[in-house]
Amino acid sequence: DSILVINCGSSSVKFSLIKPDNGETLLSGLAERLLTDEAVIKIEHKDEKKSYQLTSPFNHQTALAVLVEQLQSLNLVDNIGAVGHRVVHGGEQYSKPTLITPEVEQEIKQLSALAPLHNPANLIGIKACQAAFQHLLQVAVFDTAYHQTMPEKAYIYGIAYSLYQEHAIRRYGFHGTSHYFVAKQAAKQLNKPIEQCNLISAHLGNGCSITVIKNGKSVDTSMGMTPGEGLMMGTRCGDLDSGIIFHLVNSLGYSIEDVDKLVNKESGLLGISGLSNDCRVLQAAMIDDNNEQAKLALTVFCYRIAKSIASYSASLTELDGLILTGGIGENSSWVRSEVIKQLSLLNFVLDEEKNEATRFGASGNIATSSSRPCLVITTNEEWVIAEQTSQLLTNNAN
Amino acid sequence: DSILVINCGSSSVKFSLIKPDNGETLLSGLAERLLTDEAVIKIEHKDEKKSYQLTSPFNHQTALAVLVEQLQSLNLVDNIGAVGHRVVHGGEQYSKPTLITPEVEQEIKQLSALAPLHNPANLIGIKACQAAFQHLLQVAVFDTAYHQTMPEKAYIYGIAYSLYQEHAIRRYGFHGTSHYFVAKQAAKQLNKPIEQCNLISAHLGNGCSITVIKNGKSVDTSMGMTPGEGLMMGTRCGDLDSGIIFHLVNSLGYSIEDVDKLVNKESGLLGISGLSNDCRVLQAAMIDDNNEQAKLALTVFCYRIAKSIASYSASLTELDGLILTGGIGENSSWVRSEVIKQLSLLNFVLDEEKNEATRFGASGNIATSSSRPCLVITTNEEWVIAEQTSQLLTNNAN
Ligand SMILES: Nc1ncnc2c1ncn2[C@@H]1O[C@H](COP(=O)(O)OP(=O)(O)O)[C@@H](O)[C@H]1O
Ligand SMILES: Nc1ncnc2c1ncn2[C@@H]1O[C@H](COP(=O)(O)OP(=O)(O)O)[C@@H](O)[C@H]1O
Repeated sequence: DSILVINCGSSSVKFSLIKPDNGETLLSGLAERLLTDEAVIKIEHKDEKKSYQLTSPFNHQTALAVLVEQLQSLNLVDNIGAVGHRVVHGGEQYSKPTLITPEVEQEIKQLSALAPLHNPANLIGIKACQAAFQHLLQVAVFDTAYHQTMPEKAYIYGIAYSLYQEHAIRRYGFHGTSHYFVAKQAAKQLNKPIEQCNLISAHLGNGCSITVIKNGKSVDTSMGMTPGEGLMMGTRCGDLDSGIIFHLVNSLGYSIEDVDKLVNKESGLLGISGLSNDCRVLQAAMIDDNNEQAKLALTVFCYRIAKSIASYSASLTELDGLILTGGIGENSSWVRSEVIKQLSLLNFVLDEEKNEATRFGASGNIATSSSRPCLVITTNEEWVIAEQTSQLLTNNAN
Repeated sequence: DSILVINCGSSSVKFSLIKPDNGETLLSGLAERLLTDEAVIKIEHKDEKKSYQLTSPFNHQTALAVLVEQLQSLNLVDNIGAVGHRVVHGGEQYSKPTLITPEVEQEIKQLSALAPLHNPANLIGIKACQAAFQHLLQVAVFDTAYHQTMPEKAYIYGIAYSLYQEHAIRRYGFHGTSHYFVAKQAAKQLNKPIEQCNLISAHLGNGCSITVIKNGKSVDTSMGMTPGEGLMMGTRCGDLDSGIIFHLVNSLGYSIEDVDKLVNKESGLLGISGLSNDCRVLQAAMIDDNNEQAKLALTVFCYRIAKSIASYSASLTELDGLILTGGIGENSSWVRSEVIKQLSLLNFVLDEEKNEATRFGASGNIATSSSRPCLVITTNEEWVIAEQTSQLLTNNAN
């Protein structure tokens, strides 16, 4: 059996049909620009890419109806064992993949208070799949779940404790599925049981986060109650003096909505460079055009990654290695080199040749033999979701 | 000659008369509860402590008039060479102690945009001293000055670059006078020229900050545009997911003033413990009464100090040692032990006996002989202000 993996955003649906045992992708694709008359769905199957304009209503349901049609015409529907949904916020309630029942839907909805942009979109995907695949069980795999092992000292903010007790304001962390996957892969590469592995994992994509893993478990992470905390990212500023927010509002005439938009959509690599949120574009501008702002944006980005990685050495007494993943971690030898150069006091030393060679899907250790390992690992959240969905069904059946 | 050192807050004036060559304090004291009818001034001279109720008007001028009277009756006025003022925010303009002219006053006033609570109070002190000591030169020593050597990668926030260019929004850092003083002392103890010293300095008082010092110069620090960023402190939360601020305003009905008050006055040790902002009180509650909230507050406090110290290993390629100063750093063996325990990957190992012995004004290395040094140093910002004021006058005279 295969598992249909769904990652639903407010105006997009990413999907893939995956074999849970080996991660093989049978079909994948993306519906985007939903809720506009430019809505489109792209489906990839065995090297063949197709694209369809959607007809009205231009919504998630219509997109899934096209997907069902295609799955039927490719004879793939009958082998689907279940649907696995990426759900962003599971609060303190969910530390494991969970079969979606009406009660669970209700809780995911309530958790929207903590993730107003994400959970409602995830619920739209769940509803649409329930309609499209009435006979299939639906499973929620939470982006926060892996971090539920964090100790109190890592998840309690320095504010009134009642805000935690009454309003669940605490660190949750995100990218959990990715950090979990790459940690497991790293354990294999290090030839050590995951339960004995102490690692620092850097997921560097459009969103960026660091997780520190002690004996296989997440014990701290840089994203917080929301995915805006911690590292600087494509368009998010990450950590920021809250006095700046008060200053923007009190002295510079910003509304709180303006500030929210500024720090989440117009900051980060884009904000400093004034050019792009895309690492590739900035690298090209820096190297080919000597663009100083692009260089500054990338330099700040890397320094903050290095500081964050280094900070988590305080969470461990042993450290087996560093993991680099996500679009930037897997591909940008420049960023990796800048970051690892700044980690010499933690005994990380880059092998420049291996660094250049390990890109575009290649994986392996890019450090010298005397250094702690620096493992480049291609993440695969979809596979984890398929695997965990499949396991839950097996356990449920037994 | 001696120097009168003034540290003026909105409702208080701290003062001391100091010999710049050796730091000897001839007289010191504090006027507090100013602008209320409980205004009082306390003066200490040669082990004798006196306290006077002020008469109306209960303001800074009246307080200084009482001080002048006392200085006269003790025959101390004629030896005062100048007045040195602690000024909190010097922006990018001031990286050195500066003779106060009308232009400088104007700039300090303009910098109030960045430090609305502090710079106006500092100006009140300057005005009052100009009236009280008309024949004396006044010098400003800025809390931000020592950090003006930070590189761009440390001071640029991950937001639109125009906010730096047009509104001077960047990291400035504070406690500069203290970090500078303890770094110089550490260099002496390490028997190395300060220009060759690489240190991480933790100033832990009511306000808390970490500074990383490369070849004697500040290259990064945890406080930011305002003194609210970075570590958790007595009543300030330090780093906080900005998404929490939006959540408090958008979902929980806080005004921006409420949030400002929450994060600056009701958070930190006080916020988590619900008991006190005072480290001593919390330690007693934790040890004598098994108070869990006090323990949690102190545990989070220490973990965050350790993470911040560790993060600055990314700013250095060599590290000569750690400095602990401020009321907590100088006295709390419990906090020091908790912090240093979490720095083993950076090769810091505490000597428990030395740790217990080095308190209440004692200074020295509390690490084992195989560890990097951990130096407890009693800070003395007043001495630095006196010294720098005196030097400026000497240089001016030549
Ligand atoms: N060859 C490359 N060199 C540098 N950066 C790259 C390269 N390929 C992809 N990236 C960067 O990866 C980022 C996107 O990462 P990805 O993990 O795909 O995003 P998401 O977080 O949305 O899943 C972009 O900033 C992109 O520029
Ligand atoms: N013996 C002690 N043990 C623990 N903490 C102490 C001790 N003495 C002072 N402190 C703490 O030092 C802090 C005040 O530090 P200080 O540097 O004097 O403050 P400020 O930043 O206002 O100058 C308080 O939290 C106080 O509890």
